[in-house]
Amino acid sequence: MNKSGKNYQATTISDLSAGGRVVLHDELHLTGSEVSINELPPNVSVPFVHAHKRNEEVYVVLKGKGRFYLDGEEFDIVEGSVVRVDPVGQRCIAASPDSALRFICIQTEAKSLVQHTKDDGVLLEAKPSWLK
Amino acid sequence: MNKSGKNYQATTISDLSAGGRVVLHDELHLTGSEVSINELPPNVSVPFVHAHKRNEEVYVVLKGKGRFYLDGEEFDIVEGSVVRVDPVGQRCIAASPDSALRFICIQTEAKSLVQHTKDDGVLLEAKPSWLK
Repeated sequence: MNKSGKNYQATTISDLSAGGRVVLHDELHLTGSEVSINELPPNVSVPFVHAHKRNEEVYVVLKGKGRFYLDGEEFDIVEGSVVRVDPVGQRCIAASPDSALRFICIQTEAKSLVQHTKDDGVLLEAKPSWLK
Repeated sequence: MNKSGKNYQATTISDLSAGGRVVLHDELHLTGSEVSINELPPNVSVPFVHAHKRNEEVYVVLKGKGRFYLDGEEFDIVEGSVVRVDPVGQRCIAASPDSALRFICIQTEAKSLVQHTKDDGVLLEAKPSWLK
């Protein structure tokens, strides 16, 4: 699937588990975020510690086990772990020696969200075929 | 795990596959996004079509199969499908009759991202224990 319309872009990553890093910003024309889907093989680390100038990051662990470094602290992460990091937070992420680590990383401009969900959503009368 | 520090919040969702909807904004003190992890059982749809006032949404399908409605179009989604929707896009999402659907939904202020990745990242000299 590779589709687009007036108000959307859509694609399908052929294999979420293929490993490596898939970045979505350019392909999906993202304007509020960069979203990447990442897979580190067992015992592999991002090879550096980094921070950001403006962006908040959210890490969501989808599969596997690993370790997170943050401002000198280190802690285990597992499927379901979620970590929010301020721009200045010094961070690194690694897969465990015995497990690959799959995670999503979301970058956004810190403090940019104005409202969300019920405050931002608009309910509509339209119906998809399955709700008619 | 439920941890926080000067520059971060972290938690672990006990079971990513437990179903229902986990919203992260408040627990993680998100300032640039709302991130939800959602699971629809087989044959279940979000019961309405909606749009947004300000927010771009990104849907990332983590598992299963389903259908997406967008401005009157309908298309299949599967593991690895990613969809970006402008605020005004009219959208709905449903699991297939024979498959649950797990997906992440990311809300951000449309057009708020200023820069990302190499333009926003800062490489640091710090090292986690596993890179020393």
